[in-house]
Amino acid sequence: MAVGRGTIDGVAVIALLHGPNLNLLGQREPHIYGSATLADYEATVTAVAAQHGHTVSALQTNHEGDLVDAIHRARGEAAAIIINPGAFTHYAWSLHDALAAFAGPIIEVHITNPNAREPWRHTSVVSPVATGSIVGLGLLGYELAVEAIARKLTE
Amino acid sequence: MAVGRGTIDGVAVIALLHGPNLNLLGQREPHIYGSATLADYEATVTAVAAQHGHTVSALQTNHEGDLVDAIHRARGEAAAIIINPGAFTHYAWSLHDALAAFAGPIIEVHITNPNAREPWRHTSVVSPVATGSIVGLGLLGYELAVEAIARKLTE
Amino acid sequence: MAVGRGTIDGVAVIALLHGPNLNLLGQREPHIYGSATLADYEATVTAVAAQHGHTVSALQTNHEGDLVDAIHRARGEAAAIIINPGAFTHYAWSLHDALAAFAGPIIEVHITNPNAREPWRHTSVVSPVATGSIVGLGLLGYELAVEAIARKLTE
Amino acid sequence: MAVGRGTIDGVAVIALLHGPNLNLLGQREPHIYGSATLADYEATVTAVAAQHGHTVSALQTNHEGDLVDAIHRARGEAAAIIINPGAFTHYAWSLHDALAAFAGPIIEVHITNPNAREPWRHTSVVSPVATGSIVGLGLLGYELAVEAIARKLTE
Amino acid sequence: MAVGRGTIDGVAVIALLHGPNLNLLGQREPHIYGSATLADYEATVTAVAAQHGHTVSALQTNHEGDLVDAIHRARGEAAAIIINPGAFTHYAWSLHDALAAFAGPIIEVHITNPNAREPWRHTSVVSPVATGSIVGLGLLGYELAVEAIARKLTE
Amino acid sequence: MAVGRGTIDGVAVIALLHGPNLNLLGQREPHIYGSATLADYEATVTAVAAQHGHTVSALQTNHEGDLVDAIHRARGEAAAIIINPGAFTHYAWSLHDALAAFAGPIIEVHITNPNAREPWRHTSVVSPVATGSIVGLGLLGYELAVEAIARKLTE
Amino acid sequence: MAVGRGTIDGVAVIALLHGPNLNLLGQREPHIYGSATLADYEATVTAVAAQHGHTVSALQTNHEGDLVDAIHRARGEAAAIIINPGAFTHYAWSLHDALAAFAGPIIEVHITNPNAREPWRHTSVVSPVATGSIVGLGLLGYELAVEAIARKLTE
Amino acid sequence: MAVGRGTIDGVAVIALLHGPNLNLLGQREPHIYGSATLADYEATVTAVAAQHGHTVSALQTNHEGDLVDAIHRARGEAAAIIINPGAFTHYAWSLHDALAAFAGPIIEVHITNPNAREPWRHTSVVSPVATGSIVGLGLLGYELAVEAIARKLTE
Amino acid sequence: MAVGRGTIDGVAVIALLHGPNLNLLGQREPHIYGSATLADYEATVTAVAAQHGHTVSALQTNHEGDLVDAIHRARGEAAAIIINPGAFTHYAWSLHDALAAFAGPIIEVHITNPNAREPWRHTSVVSPVATGSIVGLGLLGYELAVEAIARKLTE
Amino acid sequence: MAVGRGTIDGVAVIALLHGPNLNLLGQREPHIYGSATLADYEATVTAVAAQHGHTVSALQTNHEGDLVDAIHRARGEAAAIIINPGAFTHYAWSLHDALAAFAGPIIEVHITNPNAREPWRHTSVVSPVATGSIVGLGLLGYELAVEAIARKLTE
Amino acid sequence: MAVGRGTIDGVAVIALLHGPNLNLLGQREPHIYGSATLADYEATVTAVAAQHGHTVSALQTNHEGDLVDAIHRARGEAAAIIINPGAFTHYAWSLHDALAAFAGPIIEVHITNPNAREPWRHTSVVSPVATGSIVGLGLLGYELAVEAIARKLTE
Amino acid sequence: MAVGRGTIDGVAVIALLHGPNLNLLGQREPHIYGSATLADYEATVTAVAAQHGHTVSALQTNHEGDLVDAIHRARGEAAAIIINPGAFTHYAWSLHDALAAFAGPIIEVHITNPNAREPWRHTSVVSPVATGSIVGLGLLGYELAVEAIARKLTE
Repeated sequence: MAVGRGTIDGVAVIALLHGPNLNLLGQREPHIYGSATLADYEATVTAVAAQHGHTVSALQTNHEGDLVDAIHRARGEAAAIIINPGAFTHYAWSLHDALAAFAGPIIEVHITNPNAREPWRHTSVVSPVATGSIVGLGLLGYELAVEAIARKLTE
Repeated sequence: MAVGRGTIDGVAVIALLHGPNLNLLGQREPHIYGSATLADYEATVTAVAAQHGHTVSALQTNHEGDLVDAIHRARGEAAAIIINPGAFTHYAWSLHDALAAFAGPIIEVHITNPNAREPWRHTSVVSPVATGSIVGLGLLGYELAVEAIARKLTE
Repeated sequence: MAVGRGTIDGVAVIALLHGPNLNLLGQREPHIYGSATLADYEATVTAVAAQHGHTVSALQTNHEGDLVDAIHRARGEAAAIIINPGAFTHYAWSLHDALAAFAGPIIEVHITNPNAREPWRHTSVVSPVATGSIVGLGLLGYELAVEAIARKLTE
Repeated sequence: MAVGRGTIDGVAVIALLHGPNLNLLGQREPHIYGSATLADYEATVTAVAAQHGHTVSALQTNHEGDLVDAIHRARGEAAAIIINPGAFTHYAWSLHDALAAFAGPIIEVHITNPNAREPWRHTSVVSPVATGSIVGLGLLGYELAVEAIARKLTE
Repeated sequence: MAVGRGTIDGVAVIALLHGPNLNLLGQREPHIYGSATLADYEATVTAVAAQHGHTVSALQTNHEGDLVDAIHRARGEAAAIIINPGAFTHYAWSLHDALAAFAGPIIEVHITNPNAREPWRHTSVVSPVATGSIVGLGLLGYELAVEAIARKLTE
Repeated sequence: MAVGRGTIDGVAVIALLHGPNLNLLGQREPHIYGSATLADYEATVTAVAAQHGHTVSALQTNHEGDLVDAIHRARGEAAAIIINPGAFTHYAWSLHDALAAFAGPIIEVHITNPNAREPWRHTSVVSPVATGSIVGLGLLGYELAVEAIARKLTE
Repeated sequence: MAVGRGTIDGVAVIALLHGPNLNLLGQREPHIYGSATLADYEATVTAVAAQHGHTVSALQTNHEGDLVDAIHRARGEAAAIIINPGAFTHYAWSLHDALAAFAGPIIEVHITNPNAREPWRHTSVVSPVATGSIVGLGLLGYELAVEAIARKLTE
Repeated sequence: MAVGRGTIDGVAVIALLHGPNLNLLGQREPHIYGSATLADYEATVTAVAAQHGHTVSALQTNHEGDLVDAIHRARGEAAAIIINPGAFTHYAWSLHDALAAFAGPIIEVHITNPNAREPWRHTSVVSPVATGSIVGLGLLGYELAVEAIARKLTE
Repeated sequence: MAVGRGTIDGVAVIALLHGPNLNLLGQREPHIYGSATLADYEATVTAVAAQHGHTVSALQTNHEGDLVDAIHRARGEAAAIIINPGAFTHYAWSLHDALAAFAGPIIEVHITNPNAREPWRHTSVVSPVATGSIVGLGLLGYELAVEAIARKLTE
Repeated sequence: MAVGRGTIDGVAVIALLHGPNLNLLGQREPHIYGSATLADYEATVTAVAAQHGHTVSALQTNHEGDLVDAIHRARGEAAAIIINPGAFTHYAWSLHDALAAFAGPIIEVHITNPNAREPWRHTSVVSPVATGSIVGLGLLGYELAVEAIARKLTE
Repeated sequence: MAVGRGTIDGVAVIALLHGPNLNLLGQREPHIYGSATLADYEATVTAVAAQHGHTVSALQTNHEGDLVDAIHRARGEAAAIIINPGAFTHYAWSLHDALAAFAGPIIEVHITNPNAREPWRHTSVVSPVATGSIVGLGLLGYELAVEAIARKLTE
Repeated sequence: MAVGRGTIDGVAVIALLHGPNLNLLGQREPHIYGSATLADYEATVTAVAAQHGHTVSALQTNHEGDLVDAIHRARGEAAAIIINPGAFTHYAWSLHDALAAFAGPIIEVHITNPNAREPWRHTSVVSPVATGSIVGLGLLGYELAVEAIARKLTE
């Protein structure tokens, strides 16, 4: 994958997108989601990205439309996307279409393993257009997602 | 349920949340929804709450994200939630996750009886995380919801 | 709703109908159903009804046919019905047809929230012919049902 | 079909069985079910049977178990069965097994046409063990059922 | 039902329509369909109709379009329809729409009881627009259908 | 399982419950159900129980409500239940809830193997709350059920 | 789309194909289908086509095979197809395969909006091979279809 | 349809509403969606409307709530709606309820033919409340939609 | 299988039946169906049959009723059937019933492998009554079908 | 059932077959499966069989093919089979076909009650060809299975 | 298809693969599968192949993995595959993936016609990657498969 | 997660398990699976593990039972499992039960993204018991899996 849009002087911008309720990380059901906060997540991702010389543009929103807007902006400004769409994962097809229009690598991340939870969490409308998915590994999953993107950007 | 967050000097704040199209109450299909307006609904709920010494913080929005935001705010500011998610009831799982993170009583209300209408209205993604549901009773259902919350807050 | 059959001198009879296994209230799975007994339920409903000048005719039965019979009797003797059909809720269509032939207000009540339990409890064959439903609020739900009926009878 | 059990001196007993809510015939939803009462139905069936020299043993019950009991009794006492199981048609498999143990002709009758009504009325658990079914023809359908049985008993 | 189109001097024409493979009656699987031929069926129906002063216009065809055409013709020429659509019963929705445009009584007849056979025979696309259905009674079912129509035409 | 309710001086009462149509055992479809009568079944179970020093309280009924009542009585009077719910197995959820409220061992028995018969016999609403199930072994299955209970009561 | 088969001197032939029961237009259920007759439809389409210099070859048939034949003929004689398959829309896959073999533009038209009617009308076996569909606009929909084809033929 | 709200001196306002990702028209998957931009679409629609003396009020948004808001505004300000809800078509029931409250003509438009694409695109929650739908015809479909509305407004 | 109807002096007639759109063989989607024409198919089958001393009676039709008629004729005139029902394979149950009434060997043939194509092509209503099926082998499949029949006729 | 293959001088061999993961008995999830090991199971079965004069040939394997092989060997060497197919129960149809070819009694055993666990454990592909099933009774279930077989072998 | 791997001097090796329980051919359910043994099948296939100058490498196994291994070996050693996967046909997707990696012709064969048997036999996970399928023709089907391969190898 | 079984002197053994057809990596459908061979995969995983001081025990097999055996061995010999079950992912529940009995971290890996392929690849019977899943990232996914395990083993 050639260095392209969203990359300046070899420094790529990674769009880190979080969907609904993930602003409550660390507060909501810590026995399920752990005690790390969203700020912790964003800081960790930024730090790992920096190790690879990349920067991160982070957004959390509870609005489906904001995520679509952000994915569109990423078309011009970012080289890759890491996205955890939260509950939108399971029904918000507008994200499917938006991501399908993004040319760079897309990693779908989930903190828990949706397949081990309620049936309605077993379907992802985002997976079919993601480069890859990493689920069930908590914060570690995000670190691996950055590693994956760093590698993809140099292929 | 102990008096807690969202309660000051025994005065509890009840978040009254209305989802999409409910701003049209009184105008939209009055043979189905009746002639009372949203303002009537909010005034009545406020009046009944006042009888119990409680106040009401009302919001109507057509935006799913706004409802999620409001539920999050209610975590710090309200003791209970009365919610009629409108059409979101049937697919907006982000509301499910947001409500699951609210510790106080939650009453789901519907003006009509969804089970007596089209099949797609028979499923509620909100019910599994609501304390209780009151449906089919119009404005009266809201009054009962306030009664239920007033009682729950003193248990 | 005009005062009609089942109402004498403004005193309405409310038929309070309980389906199978509800005679075990207070004994069966108290962590789910609480410690109040069926007698407690009937006494409370009667007391609340009395506040409105109404009387209650209560029946609990484990027999589907007895419920149908009681609903038929209510056509001549009662102004309204409060019914918790227990497990019959989910398959006993004879109740659907019987209730459809009752002209007064019908409130379906469930102590717990069926939508938060096993999938087979998510369907109600009674809801489509009920005026309204109140679920998940325990004994309180019955009190609200009486309030609803009292109001409906004066409209 | 040889003249057998339930037939004395060529006079056959026809068991006429009605299920739940059919005691309300003439009162319930006359725009759907017409104004003839259950007594009218039983009188007409008896009159038509008499034209063929047969007698009728009629039962209406809202109890599934009573219908099973009656079908069992018919094994010794009746030569044929006309049954309208009402709402039981759609789920009461105990009737299926009881009827399967009856050796004579069985005619399933419905006043209205279930296939033209709600989806849950489209399935009959009784049809697979009935000799034939006549639906949608009101009281006339019962007269035809008697004709059918009279003919079957002489074959 | 007033005497109308398709009736002259009180003599009504009954359209007797048979669908695919019913020309093989008496030859095809006699253990299932019996030994009476289509000619026997048509003669019997004509004879019974004559007892009521009516005439019969019979058609058997293996072509769905021919049945539609015949139903259209019946709009002007017949007072009632007896139809056994054979296998078309289960998928040929064009018959549904054609019959829905016929104003007189329509009786759907099946020689065997489709509900006691393979699952694909359990659905009828014709039933929802038929006045009534008579199934499982062989040739006798047709005789009853004529009786039903004769009665309907005098109501 | 400690010796408890329903056990006096080490002699336990076993409730033996039969559902609809099982009174016809020996008469109904002997090629399927064999020639032993219900009396034979009850006598055999009683005899085997006696070998273990236990007594049997037997009931057959075609009424779902009677079975629920009997299960409730067993809460005070019996140490264990052997139940063959007949056709109720497949839809009568009231039995599910009643059995769930019984603390002792419950053995579900079927004379034939429901999984080898029609699809609607493949589902059991009783199994989820039974200690164990024994199917397809005829009268022998009941003897084994007594053995199982005798063992369970001494554990 | 180049001017090709079915076009002579820039004058294109448009095949206008109507399926079963559409010959009854104006007579059948005018509250649903309006009062315009099939002749009106064909005349209007011809007039609009003439404005674009094109001619129309119209066919209505109740026979699925006739439609297939006509589509085959259109391969050599027409430049475009406007088709309203009536009830065939929902199950007649032979039309799917026939249309898939036609190279020019195909517009599927429905007078009413099938998605707003019975569930079985929600599926179209023809849509996947149509260039486009216009539904719910009555006669106007046909005029628009001609406009669409006229435009397509000049692209 | 009488000239009414949203019409001044015979000049009607047509609300042209685009849902998520349609701002990328011309950029996203041009092999599927073509090279015309959203601006091209809006300009063309405006030009065609002007030919009929009408004006256009255009909105594109990736936010479901914005579409609901816009439909509500259209109740007072527009005479008709042309809507392409993008991916919302397939799950956003709030649009269904909003459109159901709009009294003027509504045309649903899709650039491609959803029935010829992935299965999840085959269902439209909007169609049941649209006057008509035009799909698969690209920009031309919008022009036809304006034609349809112009005609409807003069009926 | 004894030499029987449809066989004279050891020369059997094989009915070769083709369903809708197969007249387009060689013209329609040659990348799927190849370049051989229907005439090529019929000639090849005739030639192979001749090698076994048999003759072929070939029919292609786009009319379901014609196929039923032809199968009926084959009852008297042919010893075996080779049938490719085209799209009828997947819904035309009248063919199922017609073929069930044919006593000789029946080979269902498909040029392509339906199981490797769209889901609606995965079901065959004909297979349950065919002696055997040969799919995916193009013209070769027909040759094998003749071989199969020649062998079957001598068993 | 006559003493036959697999029986020498009245001493029958019982094949005791365990499927995947049952070698972990006593180690895996003891709160579900108990603390008895596979060796305990095999020893107990052997001891109980010895009481009846029979011997046991035991096999545990994680390989589906090994189970099929063992069932085939049992055709010549064993008089009966006790089988707990573990997870194979729910999908390994090759076991179905292998067991269908075994002439002696087959008892399917499960330690826990599959119907009380995850939905995918509710289906057994083995049950339709088993003589009987005993589930939910742990080691005791195996003892009962031996009793059943001993009895069956003397019938 | 060019002569390639698995072909030496024009002599091709055909891998003949049989799945579970087919070693019992001639012994298992001869009324269904006939009396020919697996050895008969392999000998016949070998003889027919020899007529075309080809050799056969035969394997029967009850182990899914062995079939996968054999298919892999066939990649280097055989020019074509004839496979009857037995019960694996219906669920063993590993065979699908293995066969998809084989470049030569693959013929799926079944002795009986799976579509005429139990529903679970109606699905084949192998068909989508087979060149063709021949079912229901017993041993003859294998002979035809060899013919098909011989022809394919010379194309 | 404490360092435990399968770890000696801080050196952990990671079991690397590959299911059916993955031995063909680099040969099979390289446009889907890439050109790296299984040896490349195992070497890379071993190298990355070595960077963390861990060793790898690799196994590829086409036999479901071998995978179960290997998972069982891993209980005593390995600290973690990386598993790509190939096609077994979608139906081989024995793997589910085996993995459920493994106490250390389990990472499910897929080279491609199953959710972007055929529907039958969208279900994983392994996911519910995996610690996490990494899909769609090819060889890189395995490297990330080792990183994840290294981290998990030090937590």
